[in-house]
Amino acid sequence: MKRDAFDTWSLDELDAVESALDAWVPVDAPSGLGEAMRYAVLDGGKRLRPLLVLAAARAVRGAREAALRAACAVELIHAYSLVHDDLPCMDNDVLRRGKPTVHVRFGVAQAMLAGDAMQALAFEVLTPALGAVDAALQARLCGLLARAAGGAGMAGGQAIDLASVGLTLDEHALSDMHRRKTGALLQASVLMGAACGTTTPAQWQALAAYGQAIGLAFQVVDDILDVTQASATLGKTAGKDLDDNKPTYVSVLGLDAARRRADELRFAARAAIAASDLVHTQNLLVLADRVVDRES
Amino acid sequence: MKRDAFDTWSLDELDAVESALDAWVPVDAPSGLGEAMRYAVLDGGKRLRPLLVLAAARAVRGAREAALRAACAVELIHAYSLVHDDLPCMDNDVLRRGKPTVHVRFGVAQAMLAGDAMQALAFEVLTPALGAVDAALQARLCGLLARAAGGAGMAGGQAIDLASVGLTLDEHALSDMHRRKTGALLQASVLMGAACGTTTPAQWQALAAYGQAIGLAFQVVDDILDVTQASATLGKTAGKDLDDNKPTYVSVLGLDAARRRADELRFAARAAIAASDLVHTQNLLVLADRVVDRES
Repeated sequence: MKRDAFDTWSLDELDAVESALDAWVPVDAPSGLGEAMRYAVLDGGKRLRPLLVLAAARAVRGAREAALRAACAVELIHAYSLVHDDLPCMDNDVLRRGKPTVHVRFGVAQAMLAGDAMQALAFEVLTPALGAVDAALQARLCGLLARAAGGAGMAGGQAIDLASVGLTLDEHALSDMHRRKTGALLQASVLMGAACGTTTPAQWQALAAYGQAIGLAFQVVDDILDVTQASATLGKTAGKDLDDNKPTYVSVLGLDAARRRADELRFAARAAIAASDLVHTQNLLVLADRVVDRES
Repeated sequence: MKRDAFDTWSLDELDAVESALDAWVPVDAPSGLGEAMRYAVLDGGKRLRPLLVLAAARAVRGAREAALRAACAVELIHAYSLVHDDLPCMDNDVLRRGKPTVHVRFGVAQAMLAGDAMQALAFEVLTPALGAVDAALQARLCGLLARAAGGAGMAGGQAIDLASVGLTLDEHALSDMHRRKTGALLQASVLMGAACGTTTPAQWQALAAYGQAIGLAFQVVDDILDVTQASATLGKTAGKDLDDNKPTYVSVLGLDAARRRADELRFAARAAIAASDLVHTQNLLVLADRVVDRES
């Protein structure tokens, strides 16, 4: 029953995000750049980050236009990171969301430029002219996103990842890497949604704790799926981390303990929300389940 | 006499920019990322863009903290674009500012990540917490910078550049490429400085016209220097565009006509400022000369 309400909400929101991305990712960026950007971001992905933004915004009765822009901006940063991560100098992956990766389709240089332009576009989307979004909120959203994407966040996590190939990391070091690499942007999704409305400090803390737990749970599950699922289900090359000799939660903890860890994090995320006085949190709670129970 | 006042001003400002970049480019980004970022941005470059920001800010009595942040943010975008532009998949250049390029020193993957993190850092620098910069101005600066850096600006120009190797472009097509590739960020430098203060629409237009002319002049002179100067003077590989079979103002117009074009643009830039009712414009006027008269 509650799942049905979530499905209705999420399908509507996914439509809104898809339409907005279609409108905002330029058709007319020159010399094939727009085509590469649209290939990288449209018609693909689970849109988990946009849903987190919009679920958090709903919990705080956030401004709609701002939340939709934040949702798309976060997805643009995520999509750009995948394009760069797939490049030959990084993971050298040829399959993403069941399609050839951007550099396979458009060449390495164009893929790098498309990623660069997508990062800039995220901040363009957050800074509309003509008062569509309150200026102070624009600044707040840009600040949250930039810090999640930068050297202390996603890019920093990727640098650790790069340096960790073939190394043995303990769970603490692995968590630090993922807290930055994927966790920072997932948590920022929740906080950007929260910034679109009004929160008490306790509510903000609850959403931050939820976002942090979700962020880590996502990566634990990613590592589990990498060893338990086929490439066709994942839409990307399965077993890649193992082949690349990268430390994962499965290689560090073992499969059973990794599954328990994911459940603990799901519980922590739900508990943070449940202990708060936020209302309209049903979508956040379901998203915590979806992150852990997903099969791809 | 006036040149002396400019030199005093610019040396002070360059010190301020260098100190600010040193403080804001993180030492502690993990796994060598911070080191690569600092290598890419500190102790190098003419800092033309920061000087344009600060000269424009002075002409409009702009807020100091905002202008200094804008100056550093623009330089971070410029420096990241050089790191990515030098990569093997793009220009494959090994020498920059007289030093090995970032990917030669730190590897291709780290260089790409450093560039990515530097773009994010530009927006971090523009969005300080605690009210150091008015929130509406933060949003304005983020918007101007993102649009100059993105698909319609710098990244778009690089895509045209990539697609133009071996092609014959006419001057119009060449100008379109450079208006985006280097012109957009140079013009944004002027406008971001202008945004730090109060301007009439006519003053804003004058600064925009100045910025556009300077932006194009810069590239015309770049193309001239590429064929007239030695690598040691330039601090990068001379004759590279010619070797790479890239269209340049010299290959399209010839050397003499390119020199005349640079002078026309210098005159247009100075005329735009002179026709306005802006005061404290001396530094902008000298910068127009410096852009055209430079030897590296």
